[in-house]
Amino acid sequence: MAYRITEARLQRDNAQRERILELAQAQVAEGGFAALTMQGLAEQAGMATGSLYRYFRSKGQLAAEVFARASQREVDALGEALGAPGDPTRRLADGLHRFAARAWESRQLAFALIAEPVDPEVDEQRLIFREAYAELFANLLEEGVARGVFQVSQIHLSAACLVGAIAEALVGPLSPPARAARDVGETTLDLEQVSQALVQFCLRAVGAPLFTQENKK
Amino acid sequence: MAYRITEARLQRDNAQRERILELAQAQVAEGGFAALTMQGLAEQAGMATGSLYRYFRSKGQLAAEVFARASQREVDALGEALGAPGDPTRRLADGLHRFAARAWESRQLAFALIAEPVDPEVDEQRLIFREAYAELFANLLEEGVARGVFQVSQIHLSAACLVGAIAEALVGPLSPPARAARDVGETTLDLEQVSQALVQFCLRAVGAPLFTQENKK
Repeated sequence: MAYRITEARLQRDNAQRERILELAQAQVAEGGFAALTMQGLAEQAGMATGSLYRYFRSKGQLAAEVFARASQREVDALGEALGAPGDPTRRLADGLHRFAARAWESRQLAFALIAEPVDPEVDEQRLIFREAYAELFANLLEEGVARGVFQVSQIHLSAACLVGAIAEALVGPLSPPARAARDVGETTLDLEQVSQALVQFCLRAVGAPLFTQENKK
Repeated sequence: MAYRITEARLQRDNAQRERILELAQAQVAEGGFAALTMQGLAEQAGMATGSLYRYFRSKGQLAAEVFARASQREVDALGEALGAPGDPTRRLADGLHRFAARAWESRQLAFALIAEPVDPEVDEQRLIFREAYAELFANLLEEGVARGVFQVSQIHLSAACLVGAIAEALVGPLSPPARAARDVGETTLDLEQVSQALVQFCLRAVGAPLFTQENKK
């Protein structure tokens, strides 16, 4: 009987933890990691701030978990695009378009994940996830080189370059100043311009044949 | 008289501040930002930890200043290479070689600047300095496009891509695991391989004519 009670509590704890993480991610999507405070989150979750620390030992750990969950979804989405059957050049272009489009759909969250200054625990996760992205690109580059469509001498280094180029390309357009400029109607790059330029940069960089206008999706 | 005493103290304070920053940078160059503690630094400087806070209000602020000074030297060195007279393609290649070589000379410091997980104050400086780097590349791209040697449609976005590609290319080779592997004699990329691959990636990405073996420096 004691065992059953423990199990029930464990389940409740897990559900509660899950709910907190979802609330936390919503806050980050709304106002970046800067908007994520233990006190604000506790209020939203209807619990005492002290109780929140039963689930997450620090704000840094909580932020790192929010980061990792949101980033894993992006890695999965990119992996699906890059791992699809078909021509490696097309898959690389599709993956980049998709990555940019997903970032564009949730700019505040994307900026928070890519570049917002935040606790070192999140920086650590950034390094880990950048390797996960690089791994996906390395697999595609390897396949493309084997099939003679990419010309790359250092696969892993080039994969890292792609990860860096993509992240940095998005920082500016997703940044708070760019979002503010857009809100007041100033001309800024739109998603199509950003992702076209990014695709051009990356395809050339790996020695891939460039898409012509008509075979572009 | 009171004024003169104040001035003398100001000078002493500045000299002391300078000395602390140099000691701090030496610690970061030796063990990364992780090795930088207010207590350790105070001991080295021969002062009480409390006195250190008269000069820097927090470890984050101190780390940010160390970061900014070291990064400014890199920006200046890169600016010199990219701003030299001559062919834009050659200047881009030279700038990349130089940047990689400088990072290689002081790997621990370079890794700390580029990627070590650290206080948000340093992350903020990273964003600022990445824009400074991007500005240098944008100027060169603009000139190269005007002279018909680069083919780039979005200058600023491509400049950002270059910054990201370069930083990310170096993270792996400079990272603690790579340094450890090298120390025990495992085969890892050497500086020449890294900078060759990086130059190839970046020159292609901006549509520049690639160097052939003989006109390469």
